[in-house]
Amino acid sequence: MNTIYILNGPNLNLLGSRETSVYGTETIASLAERCHKRGKGLGLTCDFRQSNSEGQMIDWIHEAKDRASAILINAGGYTHTSVAIHDALRAVALPTVEVHLSNIYKREPFRHHSYVSLVAEGVICGMGGLGYELALEALAAHLKSARKA
Amino acid sequence: MNTIYILNGPNLNLLGSRETSVYGTETIASLAERCHKRGKGLGLTCDFRQSNSEGQMIDWIHEAKDRASAILINAGGYTHTSVAIHDALRAVALPTVEVHLSNIYKREPFRHHSYVSLVAEGVICGMGGLGYELALEALAAHLKSARKA
Amino acid sequence: MNTIYILNGPNLNLLGSRETSVYGTETIASLAERCHKRGKGLGLTCDFRQSNSEGQMIDWIHEAKDRASAILINAGGYTHTSVAIHDALRAVALPTVEVHLSNIYKREPFRHHSYVSLVAEGVICGMGGLGYELALEALAAHLKSARKA
Amino acid sequence: MNTIYILNGPNLNLLGSRETSVYGTETIASLAERCHKRGKGLGLTCDFRQSNSEGQMIDWIHEAKDRASAILINAGGYTHTSVAIHDALRAVALPTVEVHLSNIYKREPFRHHSYVSLVAEGVICGMGGLGYELALEALAAHLKSARKA
Amino acid sequence: MNTIYILNGPNLNLLGSRETSVYGTETIASLAERCHKRGKGLGLTCDFRQSNSEGQMIDWIHEAKDRASAILINAGGYTHTSVAIHDALRAVALPTVEVHLSNIYKREPFRHHSYVSLVAEGVICGMGGLGYELALEALAAHLKSARKA
Amino acid sequence: MNTIYILNGPNLNLLGSRETSVYGTETIASLAERCHKRGKGLGLTCDFRQSNSEGQMIDWIHEAKDRASAILINAGGYTHTSVAIHDALRAVALPTVEVHLSNIYKREPFRHHSYVSLVAEGVICGMGGLGYELALEALAAHLKSARKA
Amino acid sequence: MNTIYILNGPNLNLLGSRETSVYGTETIASLAERCHKRGKGLGLTCDFRQSNSEGQMIDWIHEAKDRASAILINAGGYTHTSVAIHDALRAVALPTVEVHLSNIYKREPFRHHSYVSLVAEGVICGMGGLGYELALEALAAHLKSARKA
Amino acid sequence: MNTIYILNGPNLNLLGSRETSVYGTETIASLAERCHKRGKGLGLTCDFRQSNSEGQMIDWIHEAKDRASAILINAGGYTHTSVAIHDALRAVALPTVEVHLSNIYKREPFRHHSYVSLVAEGVICGMGGLGYELALEALAAHLKSARKA
Amino acid sequence: MNTIYILNGPNLNLLGSRETSVYGTETIASLAERCHKRGKGLGLTCDFRQSNSEGQMIDWIHEAKDRASAILINAGGYTHTSVAIHDALRAVALPTVEVHLSNIYKREPFRHHSYVSLVAEGVICGMGGLGYELALEALAAHLKSARKA
Amino acid sequence: MNTIYILNGPNLNLLGSRETSVYGTETIASLAERCHKRGKGLGLTCDFRQSNSEGQMIDWIHEAKDRASAILINAGGYTHTSVAIHDALRAVALPTVEVHLSNIYKREPFRHHSYVSLVAEGVICGMGGLGYELALEALAAHLKSARKA
Amino acid sequence: MNTIYILNGPNLNLLGSRETSVYGTETIASLAERCHKRGKGLGLTCDFRQSNSEGQMIDWIHEAKDRASAILINAGGYTHTSVAIHDALRAVALPTVEVHLSNIYKREPFRHHSYVSLVAEGVICGMGGLGYELALEALAAHLKSARKA
Amino acid sequence: MNTIYILNGPNLNLLGSRETSVYGTETIASLAERCHKRGKGLGLTCDFRQSNSEGQMIDWIHEAKDRASAILINAGGYTHTSVAIHDALRAVALPTVEVHLSNIYKREPFRHHSYVSLVAEGVICGMGGLGYELALEALAAHLKSARKA
Repeated sequence: MNTIYILNGPNLNLLGSRETSVYGTETIASLAERCHKRGKGLGLTCDFRQSNSEGQMIDWIHEAKDRASAILINAGGYTHTSVAIHDALRAVALPTVEVHLSNIYKREPFRHHSYVSLVAEGVICGMGGLGYELALEALAAHLKSARKA
Repeated sequence: MNTIYILNGPNLNLLGSRETSVYGTETIASLAERCHKRGKGLGLTCDFRQSNSEGQMIDWIHEAKDRASAILINAGGYTHTSVAIHDALRAVALPTVEVHLSNIYKREPFRHHSYVSLVAEGVICGMGGLGYELALEALAAHLKSARKA
Repeated sequence: MNTIYILNGPNLNLLGSRETSVYGTETIASLAERCHKRGKGLGLTCDFRQSNSEGQMIDWIHEAKDRASAILINAGGYTHTSVAIHDALRAVALPTVEVHLSNIYKREPFRHHSYVSLVAEGVICGMGGLGYELALEALAAHLKSARKA
Repeated sequence: MNTIYILNGPNLNLLGSRETSVYGTETIASLAERCHKRGKGLGLTCDFRQSNSEGQMIDWIHEAKDRASAILINAGGYTHTSVAIHDALRAVALPTVEVHLSNIYKREPFRHHSYVSLVAEGVICGMGGLGYELALEALAAHLKSARKA
Repeated sequence: MNTIYILNGPNLNLLGSRETSVYGTETIASLAERCHKRGKGLGLTCDFRQSNSEGQMIDWIHEAKDRASAILINAGGYTHTSVAIHDALRAVALPTVEVHLSNIYKREPFRHHSYVSLVAEGVICGMGGLGYELALEALAAHLKSARKA
Repeated sequence: MNTIYILNGPNLNLLGSRETSVYGTETIASLAERCHKRGKGLGLTCDFRQSNSEGQMIDWIHEAKDRASAILINAGGYTHTSVAIHDALRAVALPTVEVHLSNIYKREPFRHHSYVSLVAEGVICGMGGLGYELALEALAAHLKSARKA
Repeated sequence: MNTIYILNGPNLNLLGSRETSVYGTETIASLAERCHKRGKGLGLTCDFRQSNSEGQMIDWIHEAKDRASAILINAGGYTHTSVAIHDALRAVALPTVEVHLSNIYKREPFRHHSYVSLVAEGVICGMGGLGYELALEALAAHLKSARKA
Repeated sequence: MNTIYILNGPNLNLLGSRETSVYGTETIASLAERCHKRGKGLGLTCDFRQSNSEGQMIDWIHEAKDRASAILINAGGYTHTSVAIHDALRAVALPTVEVHLSNIYKREPFRHHSYVSLVAEGVICGMGGLGYELALEALAAHLKSARKA
Repeated sequence: MNTIYILNGPNLNLLGSRETSVYGTETIASLAERCHKRGKGLGLTCDFRQSNSEGQMIDWIHEAKDRASAILINAGGYTHTSVAIHDALRAVALPTVEVHLSNIYKREPFRHHSYVSLVAEGVICGMGGLGYELALEALAAHLKSARKA
Repeated sequence: MNTIYILNGPNLNLLGSRETSVYGTETIASLAERCHKRGKGLGLTCDFRQSNSEGQMIDWIHEAKDRASAILINAGGYTHTSVAIHDALRAVALPTVEVHLSNIYKREPFRHHSYVSLVAEGVICGMGGLGYELALEALAAHLKSARKA
Repeated sequence: MNTIYILNGPNLNLLGSRETSVYGTETIASLAERCHKRGKGLGLTCDFRQSNSEGQMIDWIHEAKDRASAILINAGGYTHTSVAIHDALRAVALPTVEVHLSNIYKREPFRHHSYVSLVAEGVICGMGGLGYELALEALAAHLKSARKA
Repeated sequence: MNTIYILNGPNLNLLGSRETSVYGTETIASLAERCHKRGKGLGLTCDFRQSNSEGQMIDWIHEAKDRASAILINAGGYTHTSVAIHDALRAVALPTVEVHLSNIYKREPFRHHSYVSLVAEGVICGMGGLGYELALEALAAHLKSARKA
């Protein structure tokens, strides 16, 4: 069974309590729960984590190299500023899908550029928590087709 | 049963035969087929179209206003240049999801800006044909939650 | 009696039904009507058209060369992107007035540049449908002074 | 009867004698005259002024708050540089139409941005002195529709 | 007893009546009053002035050279455009604090750059009228420490 | 015998009648004629077309895939704005030469960038109608060397 | 009694020993002391902290949500680069004042933009340690007026 | 005998007392004196003026139209910001030489652009007060050659 | 018989040995040979030269003024950086065609701007050595039509 | 004996296993070893560290102030984004040499700017692990010449 | 008697014959003559030279270090592109005046920046050949005042 | 024994006498000497040259192709402007190290971009003359590892 590291960046721990008009009312616990459930249906084990620390995010990405088959990442505010996370993802070279709860392209210009997009297979944004589920399906399909090849 | 207009822009008729390293080998007919199938499972009727003409795309978006519940759009090269398609989508104000087969953020800088993203609920890119299916699921969920509210 | 081609670009067919807070509630039929009326008072015949197609807009501009004395153009979203319409207007070299229903300089930055302005005698924006009438008066005056000279 | 402050900025006192290929041969006195005449027909009293001083322009805008129903402004060179005039217009919040004799969008790039446009209902440019008349008609219509509402 | 020139630029005479959601309801008279009062407590005489004229602002800054120990300046819209006021402040070389009632960094981009900041000791913004009081305390402290040195 | 699609974009139908100081007095019929003649001498069949529609241009490029050995394209105003034509040319991957009658690098800055150049073998501009002939010779040479390889 | 979180970012622990010509000779201990003293006079309890870690800063901002009435933040070098701290401040939505010891607008261009300013009530800079005291007074006034409303 | 208007802009009244390392120790009175003297030798009458007001500068330029043969202008800080002075100079169309005491191209970037240079015959900068004398000689030569032609 | 100066800039002496995937395997001697041959057929004498020195290029352009009827120039790397060569070409005002072996618009951004294009009749690029021949034909036609006129 | 802090930033722990075509196959352990060896020969003690955390990097730089004579830093991805590390280096004011394994100027544009370069004595890049050795020699020479002075 | 190196850059040898509407009809020989004459009157020996070679210009600047008291330079097209000439002038550190025959600020944007201005005492442009004379007077005054100091 | 071409660009002949605070007091002769010495220890023959001429630099780079194993280049001011030297280095394709005496990234913005860096193995700057020695060691190591491979 494949393991997916689901890595959530800064401020996502506040999900459901902050700016609910932008991010919705679902909590991070509930989001983790639906990931586990959808993952299960797809034959995936989800290792769901959150940190406000850029260094911690990088450590987890490194750790994923040996322990996971793919990464689902919502790097929060680091998305737009972290060359270091970009480098970490490029270094471990796992299949990666980037997710954002809100449609970042409709927000401030400083959210329009993502260092993660440059190294991810694909991007899903603006779908709220459902985006995580869709990303899991995409990763499942990716891993399956890779196995075949 | 909800109808979804699935609108494909310029050059997507060549799918499966052009630049297969970028866009994969799936043809547009096969892509339409999987949309119909997934849509059916989600209780959605898919009206799948393709045109190389910007004006035709706009006409279809207008037409969708009365005949569809939502739009799934892959505007191809017009994504990056068409204020007119942006205006059309804004005018009809239907739930809209933008899809791209490839990860446009990994390609040339002129593909990094999308006029469609500014008016879409969300964006899915880099997932190949699967992205269409995921977008359908997102639209189904969106329509369901709107019905509830 | 002078003929004026009044050319309306993409999405203007939706007038009165789309984004009424921006564009008002007047329909395109009513707008045509007031043009005909005001034009009549100014000794002008108005040929009022709308198309969502850039190519059609260009064809009409070419056609105007032999059939009209002047052009009133609201190129909609093509205003900001179409070098081809700019070239067509420059080629036929008829007196041209550019009209926009809304004040485009108060809107998104991508609406602040107009390829039409570079080849028009003048620009009227933000006056709603009345702007068309004012433009007709301007063109009538222009044609009169040209006749004198 | 509504009063309109018609405020003319720097160098407009030279009208008719400077750069006549750009600005035409009509003098400012004649321009005032035609404003009075057209205004009268529209039921408007025109208070027509000109100053080369930015501070004076601001004082007049403030004064208009209590003495006028609307402002027609051609801020000349201050159009492109004066945040202070922009702030004054925003502060008094009267219906405002911006007029330019020439088509500023066909001239040097530093004339393409207007701080006045950001706070005006609409803009008329490139119509010579007739533009003032058209602006008066637009203001008359605006005041009439506001009275109705 | 030290004298502080408190110089207010364009549109600040409208304080309390314009855009109260941005600038609050306190009038300029009341603002002057609280400056006099706080200044008194700090051993400062406040010479509180307002002008809409850039030239007048410059004259006052020059005058301050011989009659004041420091300058508190809210240059209003000239903040963002006046090299001449910048030069005047640099020429007289008095301790200067820049104040803005609103937080200019949260507003339009053209308000983010200040020619005054480049020659001021410090900047206080977004504190409403209290910002003037805080600036007086800062100037009092500055003058005291300068006396010691 | 090799067939060359010679595709002319918007406004080229006006050739010989519009802006003759820029584009010369040769008509499009005469231009087609000299292409046929030169082509014949080079062993090439020329299929010479013109359209003001971007979508039509794209359709013809697609059609060329099976019916032509190479493309000579003068995309007119679409040269500078059409990602969709760029994509079409890239998709069909035929040898392509870009031609412009005037030297676009001596004209307005918005004519200095070409989306076609990014996918063409080479570019010829500023040679008037002769440029088409030279492009045909270049394509003939290209096809010949390809046959050898 | 209201609690204020006073959060100091990277390198502020070196205060008094680094670049004293820019930052002065006051140590961070002494700065904390004067905050406690001024805060006491204003009826505020100050919780004064410093960290070189961006993640720690974010954690403290989150913690403030339940334990403090307001935030005084000097985010040091993170001011100019941290979207994540910006997001954290926006998420907790407490009254926030941004302080900088030096006048950042007189320094290198990369210090002229602040992500904190975009979410702070106001900004005080260039006042050295006194700026903290003034910010406390501003926050005290803010909390008092909020209580009244 | 030709009259030259020598127009000095904001802060030049402080000459000799402000920033002497940049502007030297010569006073404006002494500068006027040497202009009169050099002018006399060249057969020119110098009308030497200074104002801190942009509007006054414009009035004087207008006045020069009938009373002077040429203009020598040092517009101080308005050099870099005043479209209105630019327009005034262009309107009166007198031979104009721009002078700056310091070499503005070695100073802050915002001093590198001059609206005056765009309408002046020539520019002299960095020569201190001598620059005025050299400008007078240039104007004398210009007037002489114009007389001949 | 007309003489054409064919001027080759820096590094073109290495032709055929450097980066053959970009520039092909033809040597400069062979390129000169085919120019002589094609030129002969067109009634042109070719004076074919190469230099790595910008000054030498300029000297030759000056020399061409009296000794040649036209210039064919491939300025190599100086194309993108030399205002001096631009000035020289403008000064001698001979018919000039610019040639590049590779398609410079497909290469690094610093190769997209050409100072030579701004003063050349036309540009041919991406045709390898054949481009020189085509340029000679263009120059021959140009000289012939000039003789007629 | 002088101590050098050799500080390695994010992802350098993966050295030898990640992107070996860019970074080579040498591991960080081996790199440390060769530093110790070369350092020894130069009379330097090397304290070799690596962290993925920006805050940790800053703490170590502060610590170096009292325990080291100089710093050799490869800040990895933080090089391009960290004002805080820049500030830390400036605060401790030790001789600093910046090293990068790859030639960052040949890579993506976002790697071309370094906040570290602005405060380092010098920069060595593109030399792989040998760059560290060369930097140590540079620091040894620097310390020796400082001792002499 | 002081010697002045008068260094003329590329294309100035064509003076009087090229673009006489821009540069006038005076030849370089005549220009040299008037420099010698004016120089003599000012007690200066003029060493007047011209070269099209950037390297030669640099060599002469170096040579000036020991043989001249000052430099008058018109670097022609190298003005805008040559960091190397900038460095040479800075290295020899002689009093330098930059001269241009035309007003470069009224011409193409690429002529608005000068690397020479950044190291020259002052700049004179737009005065034709007279500018050289005025520059000589400026240098004479500069040398005289330096002697006194 | 391998030969290294050590190529020094404009103004480096003045080393030791110009701007010693930036470039140090070592002369170019001494610099050559230490290169010869260090090179000898590394088994390298150094051919040390300097020229102020860009063309000469290019000729030497071409010459190196057959006579040297590698290039050490300090292109001086041409570093930042010469596409031609960039092309030459790319053409000869020898191992190349770029050296600068000063840290160019701490200097004016126009020194931050290097055309040489884009084609060099690596860059060493800010190390004074020692940088040359370190570059020689880097080249020696490079040649040794190439021999092994």
